[in-house]
Amino acid sequence: MGNINLKELALALNLSTATVSRALRDSHEISPETKKKVLELAKKLNYEPNPAASNLRSNKTKTIAVIIPEITNNFFSQAINGIEEIARTHDYHVLIYQTHENSELEIAFMRRLLSGRVDGILISVASETNNNQDFKDIINQLPVVFFDRVNENIDAVKVTTDDYESTYNATCHLIERGCRKIAYLMALNNLSTGKKRFEGYRAALTDNSIAINEALILTDSNNEDENCAQIKKLLVNEQPDSIITSIENLALPCYYACKDLNLNIPRDIKIISFSNLKTAPLLNPSLSTITQPAFEMGKEAASILFKILNKKYFEPNGTLILKSTIIKRESTGF
Amino acid sequence: MGNINLKELALALNLSTATVSRALRDSHEISPETKKKVLELAKKLNYEPNPAASNLRSNKTKTIAVIIPEITNNFFSQAINGIEEIARTHDYHVLIYQTHENSELEIAFMRRLLSGRVDGILISVASETNNNQDFKDIINQLPVVFFDRVNENIDAVKVTTDDYESTYNATCHLIERGCRKIAYLMALNNLSTGKKRFEGYRAALTDNSIAINEALILTDSNNEDENCAQIKKLLVNEQPDSIITSIENLALPCYYACKDLNLNIPRDIKIISFSNLKTAPLLNPSLSTITQPAFEMGKEAASILFKILNKKYFEPNGTLILKSTIIKRESTGF
Repeated sequence: MGNINLKELALALNLSTATVSRALRDSHEISPETKKKVLELAKKLNYEPNPAASNLRSNKTKTIAVIIPEITNNFFSQAINGIEEIARTHDYHVLIYQTHENSELEIAFMRRLLSGRVDGILISVASETNNNQDFKDIINQLPVVFFDRVNENIDAVKVTTDDYESTYNATCHLIERGCRKIAYLMALNNLSTGKKRFEGYRAALTDNSIAINEALILTDSNNEDENCAQIKKLLVNEQPDSIITSIENLALPCYYACKDLNLNIPRDIKIISFSNLKTAPLLNPSLSTITQPAFEMGKEAASILFKILNKKYFEPNGTLILKSTIIKRESTGF
Repeated sequence: MGNINLKELALALNLSTATVSRALRDSHEISPETKKKVLELAKKLNYEPNPAASNLRSNKTKTIAVIIPEITNNFFSQAINGIEEIARTHDYHVLIYQTHENSELEIAFMRRLLSGRVDGILISVASETNNNQDFKDIINQLPVVFFDRVNENIDAVKVTTDDYESTYNATCHLIERGCRKIAYLMALNNLSTGKKRFEGYRAALTDNSIAINEALILTDSNNEDENCAQIKKLLVNEQPDSIITSIENLALPCYYACKDLNLNIPRDIKIISFSNLKTAPLLNPSLSTITQPAFEMGKEAASILFKILNKKYFEPNGTLILKSTIIKRESTGF
């Protein structure tokens, strides 16, 4: 498999492989005439250096890894597009790994990557992530940039959005629309991302003199059918007047639950969700969203990683915070 | 960067690197006691072989590439999940490339992959793909399996869906609903995928004694705004009673165009689209779809690629055809 190799090229030129190799690397030991001859034939015969061999020499894989929970989540597919755009300008390949929220798989991926397959890692951590020591070991050995889903116990370079402000403002938006019994669908509660979102919700309630009611708070089960059943139970038992969902995956189960219970959105219940769904404006009713700048986050995280690789980034614990946008649509009584 | 290397491991054991290397490869030249000693320390010190070095030996990269037009298209993100599931069982990495429908980028990716970076390629070709010779050159050098978007002029292993039958049946569904002026939004017209979809539409009209009206046929411009403008023009000038869109990307522009023109779906116009959108049932109105088994297609294509890699597949031009499903919802007058 593959095109002509170095040995064959040398044979065709009637030169030693060492001479050809040096000529291709533009070594001063080789005469300009020989270099010209070698380069011309290499081009003509479509010679491409074996990356495994040249990696051994340069110690660069020209590859970065992106580790994310789910590719089918619109936030992540858009973020990857941003990462790719930057990788392309550096002539790098992008390896994509999905953890499906499984932290064991996540650590296994990272350990595997340590053996020299990539130059650096961009990661948005799995929701069940717990073992910080594993992360610390890996960060000590390979440049890593965290984006979106981060862990406050790990000192690392991070790119996030304004999670606290986002849910604070979304909660205030519902209060302005007359809501008082605001349910909160919590997710990512092991991560600072999820904790900050939850804090924003609580603070907005407190600032508006609304007591926090634990019965209105539901935790993501990581299973769509179970989430839908739990949401229905919450709607029947507690009769909230609105719901904030802290991840995109929880928005559609709310719509299905309301459909099943014949609840009209937004008359009977208002809904706002973190979401990068392209179809949010076309849903029935159109969905109010907290939309993160996914593409920009991917670009920024990748740019920082390349700065680290090129030794031009000097803030080992720097955090870049981008702003999300609240888009008000019919589901919150537009 | 990286863990302990072979040299350091040998030093720690007070053995030569050659001996340690042979012990790790379970060579008969090394005594069982030495092997045991080497393996125990290798494990203890977390030694992992350098993949660049071991790739040179085994000539296997343990990596496959997936080349697709767009990751944000639900069909492709679901197909990737299927591919990944199979790759994982073979302990392979998956490299993902997006062409953004650019055939030059597509060929550049493939040429780059020829240099030994991957063991095989799964590809769904870009819509503007034209140069068959480039593909033929690559297929001669590396195992390639085509899925979904294929080119009839290339002899290769292919996994597709029943494109002709899908549009034939979708057209008949609209005719049963009383439609006679059925517009067709054409895409992928350089590929057999697009051609077969178009043929299915034409055949259904002919079989139902409806003349083919060229004015009702619009071609994808590959630009969302332009598509939306063209669709609006078509709706105003030709007043079709229904639309079939031959790719998912054209469905939402139809919804926006109807909104802008105050046309009621399905009363004024019925719509059915190829789509793997998860939100199709929740759109306003819910969207009737031709849904491809994306996850299954990814699994099947990857399974065939691994059979080829393991020399267990013997049909160089075999085509596997999976069935799509027509899901009737409100947008076609449910």
